[in-house]
Amino acid sequence: MLDNNGKAGPERMQIENGKIADVHSNAVAEKQSGYVVGVDVGGTSLRMALADMTGTPLIKSSTSTVGLRGPDAVLGLIVDGVRNLLTQAAAAPEALKSIAVGVPGVTNTEDGVVIATSYLMGWRNVPLKALLENELHIPAAIDNDVNLAAIGESWVGSAKGSQDFVFLAIGTGIGAGIVLNGRPYRGSCWAAGEIGYMLLPGTVGGPGKSHEPGPLESMIGGEGIREQWRRIWSADKTSLPQELTATEIFDHALRGEALAQTLLQESASMLAHAIYNISLVLNCSLFVLGGSIGLHPALRDAVQSIVDEWNIRACPRLAASALGTEAQLLGAIRTALDAAHASSGAGVARN
Amino acid sequence: MLDNNGKAGPERMQIENGKIADVHSNAVAEKQSGYVVGVDVGGTSLRMALADMTGTPLIKSSTSTVGLRGPDAVLGLIVDGVRNLLTQAAAAPEALKSIAVGVPGVTNTEDGVVIATSYLMGWRNVPLKALLENELHIPAAIDNDVNLAAIGESWVGSAKGSQDFVFLAIGTGIGAGIVLNGRPYRGSCWAAGEIGYMLLPGTVGGPGKSHEPGPLESMIGGEGIREQWRRIWSADKTSLPQELTATEIFDHALRGEALAQTLLQESASMLAHAIYNISLVLNCSLFVLGGSIGLHPALRDAVQSIVDEWNIRACPRLAASALGTEAQLLGAIRTALDAAHASSGAGVARN
Repeated sequence: MLDNNGKAGPERMQIENGKIADVHSNAVAEKQSGYVVGVDVGGTSLRMALADMTGTPLIKSSTSTVGLRGPDAVLGLIVDGVRNLLTQAAAAPEALKSIAVGVPGVTNTEDGVVIATSYLMGWRNVPLKALLENELHIPAAIDNDVNLAAIGESWVGSAKGSQDFVFLAIGTGIGAGIVLNGRPYRGSCWAAGEIGYMLLPGTVGGPGKSHEPGPLESMIGGEGIREQWRRIWSADKTSLPQELTATEIFDHALRGEALAQTLLQESASMLAHAIYNISLVLNCSLFVLGGSIGLHPALRDAVQSIVDEWNIRACPRLAASALGTEAQLLGAIRTALDAAHASSGAGVARN
Repeated sequence: MLDNNGKAGPERMQIENGKIADVHSNAVAEKQSGYVVGVDVGGTSLRMALADMTGTPLIKSSTSTVGLRGPDAVLGLIVDGVRNLLTQAAAAPEALKSIAVGVPGVTNTEDGVVIATSYLMGWRNVPLKALLENELHIPAAIDNDVNLAAIGESWVGSAKGSQDFVFLAIGTGIGAGIVLNGRPYRGSCWAAGEIGYMLLPGTVGGPGKSHEPGPLESMIGGEGIREQWRRIWSADKTSLPQELTATEIFDHALRGEALAQTLLQESASMLAHAIYNISLVLNCSLFVLGGSIGLHPALRDAVQSIVDEWNIRACPRLAASALGTEAQLLGAIRTALDAAHASSGAGVARN
């Protein structure tokens, strides 16, 4: 039904104008009709989008994952979600060409196995790609969610045109999606960019405790900032409550609240130093800040001020994520399109 | 003259045996006859090697660079050195096919420009490739010396067969040569791997002073370790003198001297944490330790013990540089061979 709709334009043009070019367009449109689904599995919600073959999201959905974090439960949510999206689009199951799923963990994109997720989800060696393909009978791809966000930003976001950049996701956890020479760089064991564990002056603890928040996360991840706020809070220093979220604290900093500004500056300094360390290794010209905390304008401005003051050679440029909370989902859509093209033999390269 | 010598073996075989294979060998030998020169420009010496077209070094030379650090002076040393090597080999100037030079600084290998060397040499934007080609009338290539060491180790050393690894040069300065997907990774502005400036718990100072030793260098570079020894030294703690080199201190640590062992452990811990931070970004499976300090077995063993104790997933393997002080020179020879092949249209890829 929608396949026919997809062909309608070019077919009409062919009849009206009779040009060879329109016959060709018609063939391309026919080949590219259909849909893909992108999925972002998070610690609190599972978000999905149905997109057309140009990657334009048509319908989105979101489901809570609270209390449903095992692989089977998540797979069930995805399969149900796909059916609902197709129903909403009045699309036949065979119109779905591929799916790509982002997960918050170390992911082998070649074998399609989630090697490990954070201590919050606790997955180990889950063959998610095979599970998806068995259930849905379409090509599936999986990747780390931060890598997908980087792919999204590279495709239609703040890193469009950048061959080398780092996407920093700063939320509850902290991770980096690294793109080098125009392609995602995932590391020897698929764990590149796990910078939540970075050690810096002022971080507490050392390596080797992979099931806990890392030293950098403990300082400037969502829970880390809440904890730092509790640490510096006292009733004689601020009229704000002792329990605030990171973004609430940064909102108060924007409004000039002194103690919130102190914590903002501490957090910005720590993040700036992490960016500096990553820059020393990779010498990337662009860092894209994303995630609920990374997107906060107060943090970004404070980090930019610190980096500017250093006046270092080949100073990296900072940019806000253009896609915001949609970055992962758009990266998943792009990856699903690649999987569909690879499967159809079109062999479209990512960049 | 040496061209004739170069052909002698295959020619004789052809006469004696008359095999087609030998005629083929002869053609290959003829095509590949000649020499290349590899050069390593250091803070205290300039080392050179004349190699045949298989990359086997035939004659080496070394000259002091003390008091002769300007680009013109160094260029003069290289040109004189090339002439001396050819004379020693009784080779005609036209037998020299290419030259590659490693310099201790940020180097644009495409344009052939040394963008900056450390505070010790102070070069800025020196078009060394063009200067060499103007003087010697052969294809020239230049690169950062640590990148060349990584290329050497990748070619015939400890990283042979490794697609992703980091070569750590720890001497007076500290730098990393990064190989990803089998190719040197140099960064957006040719400054990847400048990890002497890395910030870690225990380092002093911050970013932005690129003309001084970096925070990590100040702790575990050659001068840094001497300085740390002076700091912890007191006559009642050790019978060793207050002025010792880093390798002397580590030699004493190997022999069981307590204060030297303390400093060895502190240095090893700092280096292990730097390796950890680099691993978080790159997730490389191998680190090759080189440079006068990095090659010290006491340091390597101590770092390995620390890393082993962490018991982290995807723990990087440590290896000693197999090429030792020859790594840079062999990387230069390999790079010169590549330049010769590229120039002759053979287009031999590096890896």
